[in-house]
Amino acid sequence: MNEYLYDDIYVGQEETFNVKITQKLMDNFFKLTGDCNPLHRDLDYAKSVGFDKNVVYGMLTASFLSTLAGVYLPGKYSLIHTIETDFVKPVFVGDTLTVKGIVKEKNDDFKVFWLKVDVFNQNGQKVVRGKMRIGFMC
Amino acid sequence: MNEYLYDDIYVGQEETFNVKITQKLMDNFFKLTGDCNPLHRDLDYAKSVGFDKNVVYGMLTASFLSTLAGVYLPGKYSLIHTIETDFVKPVFVGDTLTVKGIVKEKNDDFKVFWLKVDVFNQNGQKVVRGKMRIGFMC
Repeated sequence: MNEYLYDDIYVGQEETFNVKITQKLMDNFFKLTGDCNPLHRDLDYAKSVGFDKNVVYGMLTASFLSTLAGVYLPGKYSLIHTIETDFVKPVFVGDTLTVKGIVKEKNDDFKVFWLKVDVFNQNGQKVVRGKMRIGFMC
Repeated sequence: MNEYLYDDIYVGQEETFNVKITQKLMDNFFKLTGDCNPLHRDLDYAKSVGFDKNVVYGMLTASFLSTLAGVYLPGKYSLIHTIETDFVKPVFVGDTLTVKGIVKEKNDDFKVFWLKVDVFNQNGQKVVRGKMRIGFMC
């Protein structure tokens, strides 16, 4: 786990990690949230609306932004203020996602920074675009 | 599960549900994301930075927006385009949250609507403020 403080952060700083979306993660997200929407749970329904597989919960993909901030950038002292995400392409079970953050702006008065976030699938297609405003516990 | 279509949605329409945040949910979110940040996992650390209990992952609270859209408003045919959330107060294990959505605006050209979202704790304090842009599978 990284332990960057505000002064360690610089514009252009990047962190990246990969995560594979398994059926187990999907089942866990269902248990967590109770979101029983059939697009994510019923293959016949997903096929009936044009998909070959169940679509991964957008908020499951977005939940890895928690990891991006809390473990990687800035890590230990992270305090997420805001998150904005656009879900631009569907994610499917079995996809391997690359979660990437890059520091776009620092605010010395408030000791916060803006992290641009992009999530790509294994084909290099962007599936989530977003940004986070992040402060520090100390 | 509700099955509202675009034409069923009206400005001012509301849905609300409650969820209790347990240590099990926290453990599940850790397993899901790998976010081992000590603010959420290490009580001594949480105390050292001024909290009596471990702080709930912001993205765990936000994950219930998936349920709000996918089960309640609009329900079955929901397709979330964007989510924006501000984490305005900390949430603690044991809190009972009220997740509330109200339709603020419809766009007849794109068949999408904006849902204003607020999450309150058991003391009526707002802990998350946000909005979602939601379309339909059919």
